Amino acid sequence: MGEIVRVVVDAMGGDNAPGEIVKGAVQAVTNHENIRVILTGKEDMIKAELSKYSYPQERIEIVHTETVIETAEPPVAAIRTKKDSSIVVGLTMVRHGEADAFVSAGSSGAVLVGGQAIVGRIKGIERPALAPLIPTKDGVSLLIDCGANVDARSSHLIQFARMGSIYMEDVLGIKNPRVGIVNIGAEEEKGNALVKETFPLLKQCSDLNFIGSVEARDIPEGVCDVIVCEAFVGNVILKLYEGVAGTLIGKIKGSMMQSLKTKIGALLVKPALKSTLKSFDATEYGGAPLLGLKGLVVKTHGSSKAKEVEHSIYQCVQFTEQRINEKIKEHITL
Amino acid sequence: MGEIVRVVVDAMGGDNAPGEIVKGAVQAVTNHENIRVILTGKEDMIKAELSKYSYPQERIEIVHTETVIETAEPPVAAIRTKKDSSIVVGLTMVRHGEADAFVSAGSSGAVLVGGQAIVGRIKGIERPALAPLIPTKDGVSLLIDCGANVDARSSHLIQFARMGSIYMEDVLGIKNPRVGIVNIGAEEEKGNALVKETFPLLKQCSDLNFIGSVEARDIPEGVCDVIVCEAFVGNVILKLYEGVAGTLIGKIKGSMMQSLKTKIGALLVKPALKSTLKSFDATEYGGAPLLGLKGLVVKTHGSSKAKEVEHSIYQCVQFTEQRINEKIKEHITL
Repeated sequence: MGEIVRVVVDAMGGDNAPGEIVKGAVQAVTNHENIRVILTGKEDMIKAELSKYSYPQERIEIVHTETVIETAEPPVAAIRTKKDSSIVVGLTMVRHGEADAFVSAGSSGAVLVGGQAIVGRIKGIERPALAPLIPTKDGVSLLIDCGANVDARSSHLIQFARMGSIYMEDVLGIKNPRVGIVNIGAEEEKGNALVKETFPLLKQCSDLNFIGSVEARDIPEGVCDVIVCEAFVGNVILKLYEGVAGTLIGKIKGSMMQSLKTKIGALLVKPALKSTLKSFDATEYGGAPLLGLKGLVVKTHGSSKAKEVEHSIYQCVQFTEQRINEKIKEHITL
Repeated sequence: MGEIVRVVVDAMGGDNAPGEIVKGAVQAVTNHENIRVILTGKEDMIKAELSKYSYPQERIEIVHTETVIETAEPPVAAIRTKKDSSIVVGLTMVRHGEADAFVSAGSSGAVLVGGQAIVGRIKGIERPALAPLIPTKDGVSLLIDCGANVDARSSHLIQFARMGSIYMEDVLGIKNPRVGIVNIGAEEEKGNALVKETFPLLKQCSDLNFIGSVEARDIPEGVCDVIVCEAFVGNVILKLYEGVAGTLIGKIKGSMMQSLKTKIGALLVKPALKSTLKSFDATEYGGAPLLGLKGLVVKTHGSSKAKEVEHSIYQCVQFTEQRINEKIKEHITL
């Protein structure tokens, strides 16, 4: 058994809070001995949820907070004014070393802004990056950046590549991860000004396994492990993934309900199909870490259920045990 | 019957040239009386293909060209040096008014560069835009721009919105088409510098039915008819659409072959499923027009078969009959 890892979980964030969030925390401490969870949020609501389960009680603590930051609120103002919210209190605990990591399914904007403002950046990191895992044909790839860093510079992208590479190697155990930059063609001379400037700089990074340009068409095939792009493009990729898969699956389900014949066929293929579609569901892969901060902040999908929350907590353990932040610090001075 | 529309078709372009290209041309003139096709390419090869069919011979002409621009060739140099290629000769005929439109499944780069250099831009259009139709839940949307105009300015995007709107209204018959701008959130204050600058300008365009920001997640649901973005983002959207759908369909097919039970089920759902997947296949929707040129240039997918070539030719007829270029000219002076 390793050291105890202390994870603050925002019990009030997301569509299924606090029920599924609390359930995920209970599952995590039940299944892993070296996890302690601190739930931030309304104490009475959290207690009501916790009372449904039996679990190692000494490893879940509640820190009562009065307010909740809503998804629609402007994040900067929310972080500044709602000092007693589950997000601000959780992030402040990470800042003060009272916890190792913070997980939230709440407002993305507030988590991103709060992560930078409260936890703070690692020295030398110009911008932290939100880096979700996306499903590919036979595995996952890290998409970095999907955050709020629009209009990025090439130096940011280089740092994203380095942080993503460390994460994939040490958290996911992928040796010498392949790093690609999203581009509109395979050739080095293709691309917009940012990509053209960044490409040769990435080529020079001897610490990276840079494989060159990656076209969006090839991303789902899993051609690289770390997909580098600026946040606007990353956001489009992440959301379109979800959108195309969702619409297509909806159409497939519809077509299987067309007649008695297709309905019988659907019953026969359903179990196999279900597991396939599940493996292609981005929400299955825990949360997206905000890499480059002094502490770990993980944003999970707003629609997260207990299982995703549980997985996000395990991600935090892996991240902490592998000393990812120390490794990022070392690499950034390169 | 309307006026005869003269379409030059590059018989040498694409993975299935000249066989499928010639077949598509034959189908088009056979099914529609008011089409004349001029095939550019190696005369002996084209003649050999044509000899397989019976068709109204007076409506297919061959213009022999000696060279072919390959997909891998740098486009600017290719257009400059290969004056006797099927692409340069075809585009030159459009320029001189010897044809109304040009269709090619060959090198995208060469078609884009050649379109601008040889056919030329409509006065007032700063940049032409490549605008493919992409499948949505119950129809199609026009994605503008997917061309080579990286690092676009807001004035370009406004022109794209106007041209796309005219195209959807007059070629596809969609009344008052909904125009959206690709963004990373629904709110007006979201986005990168380009989107933030363009958003209020689009709002001011009283000739457009501007519905605001569109998140990538919602594109496949068909939330708008004209999807405005700069070419880098457009290229990512177009190719990711293809990639996610392709990989997901591959996985679904794989899961249906897992056992005898699933194989029987697959047989029962197959016909319904096939037509569903077909409706979500971007290659089904003919070619992408290069809007903003003095003549019509249409780029079809490199893997186009006869049917796509045929559809692209019909697109040209619709475009010409609806006097799209005249309408674009009028609108640009607004």
